Amino acid sequence: MELKERLQKQLEFIKEIDRIKYIFRKTRLFNSDRHENDAEHSWHLCMIAMILAEHANEPIDILKVIKMLLIHDIVEIDAGDTFLFDKNKNHSNTEEELKAAKRIFGMLPEDQSEELISIWEEFEAFESKEARFARAMDHLEPILQNHSNQGGTWSEFEVPYETVVKKKEPIKQGSEFVWEHVLEILEESVNAGHLKKGEKV
Amino acid sequence: MELKERLQKQLEFIKEIDRIKYIFRKTRLFNSDRHENDAEHSWHLCMIAMILAEHANEPIDILKVIKMLLIHDIVEIDAGDTFLFDKNKNHSNTEEELKAAKRIFGMLPEDQSEELISIWEEFEAFESKEARFARAMDHLEPILQNHSNQGGTWSEFEVPYETVVKKKEPIKQGSEFVWEHVLEILEESVNAGHLKKGEKV
Repeated sequence: MELKERLQKQLEFIKEIDRIKYIFRKTRLFNSDRHENDAEHSWHLCMIAMILAEHANEPIDILKVIKMLLIHDIVEIDAGDTFLFDKNKNHSNTEEELKAAKRIFGMLPEDQSEELISIWEEFEAFESKEARFARAMDHLEPILQNHSNQGGTWSEFEVPYETVVKKKEPIKQGSEFVWEHVLEILEESVNAGHLKKGEKV
Repeated sequence: MELKERLQKQLEFIKEIDRIKYIFRKTRLFNSDRHENDAEHSWHLCMIAMILAEHANEPIDILKVIKMLLIHDIVEIDAGDTFLFDKNKNHSNTEEELKAAKRIFGMLPEDQSEELISIWEEFEAFESKEARFARAMDHLEPILQNHSNQGGTWSEFEVPYETVVKKKEPIKQGSEFVWEHVLEILEESVNAGHLKKGEKV
């Protein structure tokens, strides 16, 4: 492929992914009632990963983690955001998301398209140490946000403590140290009355 | 410093930088009249850098470029956004920004604070090949946005073609190939009547 044609495809992709800025999450900014969009979320996760990398269970390739976090929600341009505590829908790895990955990353020159689909699949598979740490960061941010927002989505959707612990436990596989701290944050939220214990999961 | 104390400082920093999501730029999203905020902008620049890295004039350390782009606008939390075409104020490197860098990055444990201030200073100095490429990406995004928005800020603030070329020429130092393409885009905008040629700089 001629270099000019490569650039043209790359710029079309760059323009297409602008749409991630219109995908709003259930969670809200810190101390705020404004919902967060996927671009803001992805930026924040990269920062969090960069700052907390030292707490990973194993040494990680931080560039790969950041690449995962930069692109992990791009599929939501087609597939939409699914709420972690949604009772009727899987949070991720759906057919719809794979189709989206193929369409959107497929706009790039083939070598780049293959690389990004492969990084996205690695993130989704939650098997490599980079995927486990990246996912831990993805799980951590809304906990910090909810904690700053009087329980945030936990209060709003009446999610009990036990469900939060169960859904968030994968953090442990990325960083046991961060997970210990998360348990303290959750306990604080329980004590403040923003998260309810003792309900059926 | 005890590890728990490190984590506490890191989490305070992570919370503080959420404020970048409220800093709005003059430019607007692609094909849109909605202004872009600094978090969205920073995310998009990282994506653009990752995708266009092959066009850099020299091989670059992409992790360093991404770190620069992730953090380059954090100082605007205190110092605010300055418009590139502002006639009364320097775009960057002001005293105010340095003070902001020291306060905000200074929230982190000392080793991390020093690393981020140093990366931010390297970006601002525009001397290393990574800084030149990162700055090229920072200059490129609004050109693509304005091109998709019937001239965007060029029309809105009546910025003549010659001023745009002069202010955007640093792109060439990051990627001559991208700069050639930018000149074509600007020419297209002139032909479409969205950018005016032949005015005094």
